Amino acid sequence: MPKIVNHEERKEHIAEAVWRVIRKDGLDGVSVRRVADEAGLSLGALRYYFDAQDELLAYSMRLISHRANERIRNLPDTGEPRERIERIIAELLPLDGVRTAEAEVWFAFVGKALSDPAIGALSREVHDELYEGFRSMVDPLVSLKLAKDGIDADRETKRLHALVDGLVLHRIAFPERIRSEELMSIVSLHLDSLLKEPDRR
Amino acid sequence: MPKIVNHEERKEHIAEAVWRVIRKDGLDGVSVRRVADEAGLSLGALRYYFDAQDELLAYSMRLISHRANERIRNLPDTGEPRERIERIIAELLPLDGVRTAEAEVWFAFVGKALSDPAIGALSREVHDELYEGFRSMVDPLVSLKLAKDGIDADRETKRLHALVDGLVLHRIAFPERIRSEELMSIVSLHLDSLLKEPDRR
Repeated sequence: MPKIVNHEERKEHIAEAVWRVIRKDGLDGVSVRRVADEAGLSLGALRYYFDAQDELLAYSMRLISHRANERIRNLPDTGEPRERIERIIAELLPLDGVRTAEAEVWFAFVGKALSDPAIGALSREVHDELYEGFRSMVDPLVSLKLAKDGIDADRETKRLHALVDGLVLHRIAFPERIRSEELMSIVSLHLDSLLKEPDRR
Repeated sequence: MPKIVNHEERKEHIAEAVWRVIRKDGLDGVSVRRVADEAGLSLGALRYYFDAQDELLAYSMRLISHRANERIRNLPDTGEPRERIERIIAELLPLDGVRTAEAEVWFAFVGKALSDPAIGALSREVHDELYEGFRSMVDPLVSLKLAKDGIDADRETKRLHALVDGLVLHRIAFPERIRSEELMSIVSLHLDSLLKEPDRR
Protein backbone atom coordinates (compact mmCIF):
# COMPACT_ATOMS: atom_id res chain seq x y z
CA MET A 1 0.00 0.00 0.00
CA PRO A 2 1.46 3.40 -0.87
CA LYS A 3 2.28 5.77 1.96
CA ILE A 4 -0.46 8.34 2.39
CA VAL A 5 0.91 11.87 2.14
CA ASN A 6 -1.10 14.86 3.28
CA HIS A 7 -0.25 17.29 0.49
CA GLU A 8 -1.22 20.43 2.34
CA GLU A 9 0.94 19.45 5.33
CA ARG A 10 3.83 18.64 3.03
CA LYS A 11 3.57 22.05 1.37
CA GLU A 12 3.53 23.80 4.74
CA HIS A 13 6.56 21.75 5.81
CA ILE A 14 8.37 23.01 2.69
CA ALA A 15 7.27 26.62 3.30
CA GLU A 16 8.62 26.40 6.86
CA ALA A 17 11.95 25.32 5.38
CA VAL A 18 11.81 28.45 3.18
CA TRP A 19 11.23 30.55 6.32
CA ARG A 20 14.27 29.03 8.04
CA VAL A 21 16.46 29.76 5.01
CA ILE A 22 15.17 33.36 4.87
CA ARG A 23 15.80 33.90 8.58
CA LYS A 24 19.34 32.55 8.26
CA ASP A 25 20.43 34.08 4.95
CA GLY A 26 17.74 36.44 3.75
CA LEU A 27 15.60 36.10 0.65
CA ASP A 28 18.67 36.04 -1.60
CA GLY A 29 19.67 32.77 0.06
CA VAL A 30 16.53 30.98 -1.15
CA SER A 31 17.00 28.51 -3.99
CA VAL A 32 14.96 25.42 -4.80
CA ARG A 33 17.97 23.20 -4.04
CA ARG A 34 18.74 24.89 -0.73
CA VAL A 35 15.10 24.59 0.37
CA ALA A 36 14.96 20.91 -0.63
CA ASP A 37 18.04 20.27 1.57
CA GLU A 38 16.55 22.24 4.46
CA ALA A 39 13.25 20.34 4.16
CA GLY A 40 15.02 16.98 3.90
CA LEU A 41 13.49 16.26 0.49
CA SER A 42 14.87 15.38 -2.92
CA LEU A 43 14.81 18.06 -5.58
CA GLY A 44 12.25 15.96 -7.46
CA ALA A 45 9.95 15.66 -4.45
CA LEU A 46 10.07 19.41 -3.94
CA ARG A 47 9.42 20.09 -7.62
CA TYR A 48 6.31 17.91 -7.37
CA TYR A 49 4.84 20.61 -5.13
CA PHE A 50 6.54 23.74 -6.43
CA ASP A 51 7.58 23.96 -10.03
CA ALA A 52 9.49 27.20 -9.75
CA GLN A 53 11.07 29.45 -7.15
CA ASP A 54 8.45 32.19 -7.48
CA GLU A 55 5.62 29.76 -6.64
CA LEU A 56 7.59 28.61 -3.62
CA LEU A 57 8.09 32.18 -2.41
CA ALA A 58 4.47 33.14 -3.05
CA TYR A 59 3.19 30.17 -1.06
CA SER A 60 5.63 30.89 1.79
CA MET A 61 4.58 34.53 2.01
CA ARG A 62 0.87 33.72 1.88
CA LEU A 63 1.29 31.08 4.56
CA ILE A 64 2.22 33.86 7.01
CA SER A 65 -1.10 35.67 6.61
CA HIS A 66 -2.95 32.36 6.39
CA ARG A 67 -1.56 31.24 9.77
CA ALA A 68 -2.23 34.61 11.42
CA ASN A 69 -5.77 34.66 9.97
CA GLU A 70 -6.41 31.18 11.27
CA ARG A 71 -5.35 32.15 14.80
CA ILE A 72 -7.54 35.26 14.59
CA ARG A 73 -10.53 33.24 13.35
CA ASN A 74 -10.13 30.91 16.33
CA LEU A 75 -10.15 33.69 18.93
CA PRO A 76 -13.11 33.42 21.30
CA ASP A 77 -15.63 36.21 20.76
CA THR A 78 -16.00 37.95 24.10
CA GLY A 79 -18.48 40.47 22.69
CA GLU A 80 -16.20 43.25 23.94
CA PRO A 81 -14.91 45.20 20.88
CA ARG A 82 -11.83 46.70 22.53
CA GLU A 83 -10.72 43.39 23.98
CA ARG A 84 -11.23 41.75 20.59
CA ILE A 85 -9.03 44.35 18.84
CA GLU A 86 -6.29 43.86 21.42
CA ARG A 87 -6.38 40.11 20.95
CA ILE A 88 -6.26 40.39 17.17
CA ILE A 89 -3.32 42.79 17.24
CA ALA A 90 -1.52 40.50 19.70
CA GLU A 91 -1.65 37.78 17.02
CA LEU A 92 0.27 40.10 14.65
CA LEU A 93 2.99 41.14 17.10
CA PRO A 94 6.22 39.13 17.68
CA LEU A 95 5.18 38.01 21.18
CA ASP A 96 6.48 34.44 20.94
CA GLY A 97 8.81 32.36 18.80
CA VAL A 98 6.17 31.51 16.17
CA ARG A 99 5.05 35.11 15.68
CA THR A 100 8.66 36.35 15.75
CA ALA A 101 9.52 33.96 12.92
CA GLU A 102 6.51 35.18 10.94
CA ALA A 103 7.45 38.82 11.54
CA GLU A 104 11.05 38.28 10.42
CA VAL A 105 9.97 36.57 7.22
CA TRP A 106 7.33 39.26 6.55
CA PHE A 107 10.00 41.91 7.05
CA ALA A 108 12.40 40.20 4.63
CA PHE A 109 9.66 40.19 1.97
CA VAL A 110 8.81 43.86 2.54
CA GLY A 111 12.49 44.80 2.31
CA LYS A 112 12.86 42.93 -0.97
CA ALA A 113 9.67 44.57 -2.28
CA LEU A 114 11.67 47.75 -2.98
CA SER A 115 13.86 46.19 -5.65
CA ASP A 116 11.96 43.10 -6.86
CA PRO A 117 8.61 43.68 -8.65
CA ALA A 118 7.32 40.10 -8.16
CA ILE A 119 8.05 40.18 -4.42
CA GLY A 120 6.62 43.70 -4.42
CA ALA A 121 3.28 42.45 -5.78
CA LEU A 122 3.15 39.67 -3.18
CA SER A 123 4.02 41.96 -0.29
CA ARG A 124 1.44 44.48 -1.45
CA GLU A 125 -1.19 41.72 -1.38
CA VAL A 126 -0.39 40.96 2.27
CA HIS A 127 -0.13 44.68 3.08
CA ASP A 128 -3.61 45.24 1.59
CA GLU A 129 -5.03 42.31 3.54
CA LEU A 130 -3.58 43.80 6.71
CA TYR A 131 -5.06 47.22 5.89
CA GLU A 132 -8.47 45.55 5.47
CA GLY A 133 -7.95 43.72 8.76
CA PHE A 134 -7.17 46.96 10.62
CA ARG A 135 -10.04 48.68 8.84
CA SER A 136 -12.43 46.02 10.10
CA MET A 137 -11.22 46.80 13.64
CA VAL A 138 -11.69 50.58 13.30
CA ASP A 139 -15.07 50.53 11.49
CA PRO A 140 -17.08 48.87 14.32
CA LEU A 141 -15.61 51.35 16.82
CA VAL A 142 -17.09 54.11 14.67
CA SER A 143 -20.43 52.44 13.95
CA LEU A 144 -20.89 51.40 17.60
CA LYS A 145 -20.00 54.99 18.60
CA LEU A 146 -17.17 53.76 20.81
CA ALA A 147 -14.63 55.88 18.94
CA LYS A 148 -14.33 59.60 19.51
CA ASP A 149 -16.63 61.68 17.32
CA GLY A 150 -15.42 62.86 13.94
CA ILE A 151 -12.89 60.08 13.40
CA ASP A 152 -11.62 59.58 9.85
CA ALA A 153 -11.64 55.77 9.53
CA ASP A 154 -9.16 55.61 6.64
CA ARG A 155 -6.57 57.84 8.31
CA GLU A 156 -7.02 56.11 11.67
CA THR A 157 -6.61 52.72 10.01
CA LYS A 158 -3.40 53.86 8.31
CA ARG A 159 -2.16 55.27 11.62
CA LEU A 160 -2.87 52.03 13.50
CA HIS A 161 -1.36 49.92 10.70
CA ALA A 162 1.83 52.04 10.63
CA LEU A 163 2.11 51.95 14.42
CA VAL A 164 1.79 48.15 14.58
CA ASP A 165 4.29 47.60 11.74
CA GLY A 166 6.68 50.08 13.38
CA LEU A 167 6.42 48.18 16.67
CA VAL A 168 7.02 44.86 14.89
CA LEU A 169 10.07 46.34 13.17
CA HIS A 170 11.52 47.79 16.39
CA ARG A 171 11.00 44.61 18.35
CA ILE A 172 12.56 42.25 15.79
CA ALA A 173 15.45 44.56 14.82
CA PHE A 174 16.25 45.98 18.29
CA PRO A 175 14.82 43.51 20.84
CA GLU A 176 16.97 44.99 23.63
CA ARG A 177 15.39 48.40 23.08
CA ILE A 178 11.71 47.49 23.52
CA ARG A 179 10.45 44.77 25.80
CA SER A 180 7.83 42.32 24.66
CA GLU A 181 5.34 43.56 27.32
CA GLU A 182 5.73 47.13 26.11
CA LEU A 183 4.27 46.28 22.70
CA MET A 184 0.74 45.63 23.96
CA SER A 185 0.97 48.43 26.49
CA ILE A 186 1.70 50.90 23.66
CA VAL A 187 -1.15 49.46 21.57
CA SER A 188 -3.45 49.91 24.56
CA LEU A 189 -2.33 53.53 24.96
CA HIS A 190 -3.11 54.01 21.29
CA LEU A 191 -6.62 52.58 21.63
CA ASP A 192 -7.17 54.97 24.57
CA SER A 193 -6.56 57.85 22.17
CA LEU A 194 -9.14 56.48 19.72
CA LEU A 195 -11.91 55.61 22.18
CA LYS A 196 -14.28 57.81 24.10
CA GLU A 197 -13.45 58.19 27.80
CA PRO A 198 -16.15 55.89 29.24
CA ASP A 199 -15.06 53.04 26.98
CA ARG A 200 -11.48 53.07 28.16
CA ARG A 201 -10.36 50.56 30.70
CA MET B 1 50.57 73.12 -7.49
CA PRO B 2 48.71 69.99 -6.33
CA LYS B 3 44.95 69.92 -6.71
CA ILE B 4 43.26 70.79 -3.45
CA VAL B 5 40.87 68.08 -2.32
CA ASN B 6 38.26 68.67 0.31
CA HIS B 7 38.52 65.41 2.22
CA GLU B 8 35.15 65.64 3.92
CA GLU B 9 33.42 66.29 0.58
CA ARG B 10 35.28 63.39 -0.99
CA LYS B 11 34.17 61.05 1.79
CA GLU B 12 30.56 62.16 1.39
CA HIS B 13 30.84 61.63 -2.37
CA ILE B 14 32.00 58.06 -1.68
CA ALA B 15 29.22 57.47 0.87
CA GLU B 16 26.65 58.63 -1.68
CA ALA B 17 28.05 56.02 -4.08
CA VAL B 18 27.52 53.43 -1.31
CA TRP B 19 23.90 54.60 -1.01
CA ARG B 20 23.34 54.19 -4.75
CA VAL B 21 24.76 50.65 -4.68
CA ILE B 22 22.55 49.77 -1.67
CA ARG B 23 19.43 51.16 -3.37
CA LYS B 24 20.17 49.18 -6.53
CA ASP B 25 21.36 45.88 -5.10
CA GLY B 26 20.93 45.94 -1.35
CA LEU B 27 23.65 45.84 1.28
CA ASP B 28 24.95 42.51 -0.02
CA GLY B 29 25.87 44.29 -3.27
CA VAL B 30 28.34 46.59 -1.52
CA SER B 31 32.02 45.82 -2.07
CA VAL B 32 34.95 48.22 -1.98
CA ARG B 33 35.58 47.62 -5.70
CA ARG B 34 31.94 48.17 -6.68
CA VAL B 35 31.77 51.41 -4.69
CA ALA B 36 35.03 52.68 -6.23
CA ASP B 37 33.53 52.09 -9.71
CA GLU B 38 30.28 53.81 -8.72
CA ALA B 39 32.17 56.79 -7.28
CA GLY B 40 34.49 57.00 -10.34
CA LEU B 41 37.59 56.47 -8.22
CA SER B 42 40.48 54.03 -8.31
CA LEU B 43 40.55 51.34 -5.66
CA GLY B 44 43.68 53.01 -4.24
CA ALA B 45 41.98 56.41 -3.99
CA LEU B 46 39.02 54.87 -2.20
CA ARG B 47 41.28 52.94 0.19
CA TYR B 48 42.98 56.22 1.10
CA TYR B 49 39.68 57.22 2.74
CA PHE B 50 38.28 53.87 3.80
CA ASP B 51 40.59 51.05 4.67
CA ALA B 52 37.94 48.40 4.98
CA GLN B 53 34.34 47.70 4.04
CA ASP B 54 33.02 48.03 7.59
CA GLU B 55 34.43 51.58 7.91
CA LEU B 56 32.80 52.44 4.60
CA LEU B 57 29.42 51.12 5.75
CA ALA B 58 29.67 52.79 9.16
CA TYR B 59 30.43 56.17 7.58
CA SER B 60 27.59 55.75 5.05
CA MET B 61 25.07 54.88 7.76
CA ARG B 62 26.16 57.74 10.04
CA LEU B 63 25.99 60.19 7.15
CA ILE B 64 22.21 59.62 7.03
CA SER B 65 21.66 60.83 10.58
CA HIS B 66 24.30 63.51 10.16
CA ARG B 67 22.47 64.97 7.14
CA ALA B 68 19.04 64.79 8.83
CA ASN B 69 20.47 66.38 11.99
CA GLU B 70 22.01 69.19 9.99
CA ARG B 71 18.68 69.95 8.31
CA ILE B 72 16.95 69.89 11.69
CA ARG B 73 19.59 72.20 13.23
CA ASN B 74 19.00 74.68 10.42
CA LEU B 75 15.23 74.83 10.90
CA PRO B 76 14.05 78.30 11.90
CA ASP B 77 12.84 78.42 15.51
CA THR B 78 9.28 79.73 15.36
CA GLY B 79 8.85 79.45 19.14
CA GLU B 80 5.77 77.29 18.54
CA PRO B 81 6.49 73.79 19.95
CA ARG B 82 3.91 71.90 17.90
CA GLU B 83 5.03 73.48 14.64
CA ARG B 84 8.64 72.72 15.50
CA ILE B 85 7.85 69.04 16.09
CA GLU B 86 6.01 68.82 12.77
CA ARG B 87 8.94 70.38 10.94
CA ILE B 88 11.45 68.05 12.57
CA ILE B 89 9.40 64.94 11.77
CA ALA B 90 8.99 66.16 8.18
CA GLU B 91 12.80 66.01 7.86
CA LEU B 92 12.68 62.31 8.75
CA LEU B 93 9.89 61.32 6.36
CA PRO B 94 10.46 60.38 2.67
CA LEU B 95 8.84 63.58 1.35
CA ASP B 96 11.31 64.22 -1.48
CA GLY B 97 14.01 62.41 -3.43
CA VAL B 98 16.78 63.11 -0.91
CA ARG B 99 14.77 61.94 2.10
CA THR B 100 13.47 58.91 0.18
CA ALA B 101 17.04 57.87 -0.60
CA GLU B 102 17.98 58.26 3.06
CA ALA B 103 14.94 56.25 4.16
CA GLU B 104 15.68 53.40 1.74
CA VAL B 105 19.30 53.16 2.89
CA TRP B 106 18.25 53.33 6.57
CA PHE B 107 15.75 50.54 5.91
CA ALA B 108 18.38 48.35 4.22
CA PHE B 109 20.62 48.74 7.28
CA VAL B 110 17.81 47.93 9.73
CA GLY B 111 16.90 44.83 7.69
CA LYS B 112 20.49 43.61 7.75
CA ALA B 113 20.69 44.30 11.50
CA LEU B 114 18.77 41.06 12.13
CA SER B 115 21.50 38.80 10.78
CA ASP B 116 24.72 40.87 10.91
CA PRO B 117 26.01 41.89 14.38
CA ALA B 118 28.26 44.72 13.11
CA ILE B 119 25.43 46.27 11.08
CA GLY B 120 23.17 45.60 14.09
CA ALA B 121 25.41 47.71 16.34
CA LEU B 122 25.47 50.56 13.80
CA SER B 123 21.70 50.51 13.27
CA ARG B 124 21.13 50.44 17.02
CA GLU B 125 23.28 53.57 17.33
CA VAL B 126 21.08 55.43 14.83
CA HIS B 127 17.92 53.96 16.38
CA ASP B 128 19.02 55.25 19.81
CA GLU B 129 19.78 58.69 18.39
CA LEU B 130 16.30 58.77 16.87
CA TYR B 131 14.74 57.71 20.17
CA GLU B 132 16.58 60.60 21.88
CA GLY B 133 15.40 62.95 19.12
CA PHE B 134 11.76 61.93 19.60
CA ARG B 135 12.20 62.08 23.37
CA SER B 136 13.39 65.68 23.07
CA MET B 137 10.16 66.46 21.18
CA VAL B 138 7.89 64.81 23.78
CA ASP B 139 9.62 66.15 26.92
CA PRO B 140 8.97 69.88 26.27
CA LEU B 141 5.29 69.10 25.56
CA VAL B 142 5.11 67.62 29.06
CA SER B 143 7.18 70.30 30.84
CA LEU B 144 5.31 73.14 29.08
CA LYS B 145 2.05 71.40 30.02
CA LEU B 146 0.95 71.27 26.38
CA ALA B 147 0.55 67.49 26.51
CA LYS B 148 -2.42 65.86 28.12
CA ASP B 149 -2.01 65.25 31.84
CA GLY B 150 -0.52 61.99 33.05
CA ILE B 151 1.47 61.25 29.91
CA ASP B 152 4.21 58.62 30.17
CA ALA B 153 7.04 60.25 28.19
CA ASP B 154 8.93 57.01 27.51
CA ARG B 155 5.90 55.13 26.19
CA GLU B 156 4.71 58.13 24.17
CA THR B 157 8.19 58.50 22.67
CA LYS B 158 8.25 54.83 21.70
CA ARG B 159 4.77 55.15 20.23
CA LEU B 160 5.70 58.21 18.14
CA HIS B 161 8.98 56.60 17.04
CA ALA B 162 7.21 53.38 15.96
CA LEU B 163 4.51 55.36 14.14
CA VAL B 164 7.04 57.45 12.18
CA ASP B 165 9.17 54.40 11.26
CA GLY B 166 6.01 52.52 10.23
CA LEU B 167 4.96 55.42 8.00
CA VAL B 168 8.44 55.59 6.45
CA LEU B 169 8.31 51.83 5.80
CA HIS B 170 4.83 51.94 4.24
CA ARG B 171 5.67 54.90 2.02
CA ILE B 172 8.94 53.50 0.65
CA ALA B 173 7.71 49.91 0.25
CA PHE B 174 4.14 50.64 -0.96
CA PRO B 175 4.18 54.20 -2.37
CA GLU B 176 0.91 53.58 -4.25
CA ARG B 177 -0.85 52.76 -0.96
CA ILE B 178 -0.11 55.94 0.99
CA ARG B 179 0.26 59.37 -0.57
CA SER B 180 3.08 61.67 0.41
CA GLU B 181 0.60 64.29 1.80
CA GLU B 182 -1.02 61.66 4.02
CA LEU B 183 2.18 61.16 6.00
CA MET B 184 2.14 64.58 7.66
CA SER B 185 -1.62 64.51 8.00
CA ILE B 186 -1.36 61.28 10.04
CA VAL B 187 1.46 62.74 12.14
CA SER B 188 -0.73 65.78 12.80
CA LEU B 189 -3.62 63.53 13.86
CA HIS B 190 -1.22 61.80 16.21
CA LEU B 191 -0.08 65.06 17.79
CA ASP B 192 -3.75 65.96 18.31
CA SER B 193 -4.08 62.86 20.47
CA LEU B 194 -1.07 63.90 22.57
CA LEU B 195 -1.91 67.57 23.07
CA LYS B 196 -4.54 69.22 25.22
CA GLU B 197 -7.54 70.56 23.33
CA PRO B 198 -6.65 74.29 23.39
CA ASP B 199 -3.23 73.60 21.92
CA ARG B 200 -4.56 71.80 18.87
CA ARG B 201 -4.82 73.63 15.62
